[in-house]
Amino acid sequence: MYETIALVGATGAVGRIVLDQLVQRQFPYKRLKLLASQRSVGTEIRVGDETIKVELLEPSAFKGVDLVIASTPDEVSAEFAQWAVDAGAVVVDESAYWRMDPSVPLVVPEVNPEAVKHHSGIIASPNCSTTQMVVALAPLHKAAVVKRVVVSTYQATSGAGIAGNEELRDSVRRSLAGQTHPPKTFAHPIAFNLIPQIGSEKQDGYTSEEMKMVYETRKILGDDSIQVCPTCVRVPVMIGHSESILVETERPLTAMEATELFRGAEGITVVDDLAAKQYPMPRDCDGKDDVFVGRIRHDISGPNGIAFWCVSDNLRKGAATNAIQIAELLVRNAANA
Amino acid sequence: MYETIALVGATGAVGRIVLDQLVQRQFPYKRLKLLASQRSVGTEIRVGDETIKVELLEPSAFKGVDLVIASTPDEVSAEFAQWAVDAGAVVVDESAYWRMDPSVPLVVPEVNPEAVKHHSGIIASPNCSTTQMVVALAPLHKAAVVKRVVVSTYQATSGAGIAGNEELRDSVRRSLAGQTHPPKTFAHPIAFNLIPQIGSEKQDGYTSEEMKMVYETRKILGDDSIQVCPTCVRVPVMIGHSESILVETERPLTAMEATELFRGAEGITVVDDLAAKQYPMPRDCDGKDDVFVGRIRHDISGPNGIAFWCVSDNLRKGAATNAIQIAELLVRNAANA
Repeated sequence: MYETIALVGATGAVGRIVLDQLVQRQFPYKRLKLLASQRSVGTEIRVGDETIKVELLEPSAFKGVDLVIASTPDEVSAEFAQWAVDAGAVVVDESAYWRMDPSVPLVVPEVNPEAVKHHSGIIASPNCSTTQMVVALAPLHKAAVVKRVVVSTYQATSGAGIAGNEELRDSVRRSLAGQTHPPKTFAHPIAFNLIPQIGSEKQDGYTSEEMKMVYETRKILGDDSIQVCPTCVRVPVMIGHSESILVETERPLTAMEATELFRGAEGITVVDDLAAKQYPMPRDCDGKDDVFVGRIRHDISGPNGIAFWCVSDNLRKGAATNAIQIAELLVRNAANA
Repeated sequence: MYETIALVGATGAVGRIVLDQLVQRQFPYKRLKLLASQRSVGTEIRVGDETIKVELLEPSAFKGVDLVIASTPDEVSAEFAQWAVDAGAVVVDESAYWRMDPSVPLVVPEVNPEAVKHHSGIIASPNCSTTQMVVALAPLHKAAVVKRVVVSTYQATSGAGIAGNEELRDSVRRSLAGQTHPPKTFAHPIAFNLIPQIGSEKQDGYTSEEMKMVYETRKILGDDSIQVCPTCVRVPVMIGHSESILVETERPLTAMEATELFRGAEGITVVDDLAAKQYPMPRDCDGKDDVFVGRIRHDISGPNGIAFWCVSDNLRKGAATNAIQIAELLVRNAANA
């Protein structure tokens, strides 16, 4: 059913991981096309035992394509997705462009796999910060109903692509050598610094990244009454987004109950032993697919809260892995149909 | 009245800044003694136009001393403070040892200057994370009564002293060169990483650093009903602690009211223009005495909340500056007596 697949954005930070994962997870495709803008056309990319030449992203490129996995900027997705759908393909899109479209399912396979069935050709994968958070919230929501979330993020520079990590590496090196390092990818110097803004100003003093965490969480958990107060911050870490989360539930949960719920949930690894100094850290989550949860404790400031710390590889579960899991779900559903 | 002062811990990260500040702020002392453990005895330190030799920290060293400013580990303070008090000196102590002692005022001069009057020889300066937070909370508390605070910190490595910054610098250098860098000062590698533990395990899954933010906040604001849920995280930044704060007040405040309250408060600088990408960042607060506040906005997850971002130089207002301001307050009160 999904024999010919196309990857749009293969040369980006996430695209590279999608390619690796397609091979590692033995995704059952027969033919793989790599599509990109004019700049990358002709580039040869090694995928498993094959070497594939990048072709131009244009309407005719989707002829015969069954499934598209796309990791591109919003404006690229806005244009090509319809080309793919018109050619009969299903698009798994990682950009923000389609996520809040009512006709587009926004899917995290561990959380709302059933949503994938109701697509009209496009399925969206959420923002990286949202994905790891909803994976963690889902078991608590199912057991005790999430009412409110207060989240502060610690987001890696790779969230801004390969250029983000290059800028961190280069600016740290220059900073240590006492040289100036004017920012390019980021609005401010990132070496030994924090930038409390990700995305543009959106509404009521919140950024676009923060509002994604509000709206996407509601859509994925299927509950528009969930209240979210996010603060998104860029930190000088290359891979792995971290989140300090306080969640209030309708039914109070003890820290032990919450821990058991996390332990029993698909896609979550609990690392939580403060006395032994064990908790999730970006360094340990780099290159892993799971969402890691620790520092699970009762909210000492209110009756119905659980506080916890959540880390995940933003390029994996936050992007590439989630998209491939959606594609795998499509394959599985087709096989069972 | 406070003619002879002694500085305990002059060779540490904070002690060095205390010395600079004594000179820069023209603290009205006549004689300055530098006291330290055996290891540093005989070290010569330049203070303004003088060169002062470090003397041994022992009971007889406090003879004739009127005022002590101390920046030492808790266990050192536990021992020497009584020696100083017995010799007739007043001790301004930056360690955690005396802070929660009912007979010891815990003072942030912008917030509770009156508390300094009720001392029995020892006055404590709060934990760095607490100090900047209470400076920011104080005007909101006065105007609208703070009921609850949810805070996630982003704390600099200099909070662990000179060794903390050396470890960050060295481990980042090694990491970029592809070399291993086993941690010494910190429990885990800090280069391009985050450590969600500061201090030791204390109670209910919270660390000692986090519980300081709970108890010290209540003591300084003089309101034991204030609820605080803290998460303290070490980040790869050298100077400047940052805090993502959500505060709920009894009387609801608009973001504009909160901003005006911050603007009108002593010791606070508001940097808040998201559209122009202006907000406080550690890099810009390094070497400054104020507490910087930005990203001020209504809590979109609840009716009575204000969310904001708060940065301050942890060695300055978080430590040295606050201690000197307490000493200045003592001098002023003595002059007015």
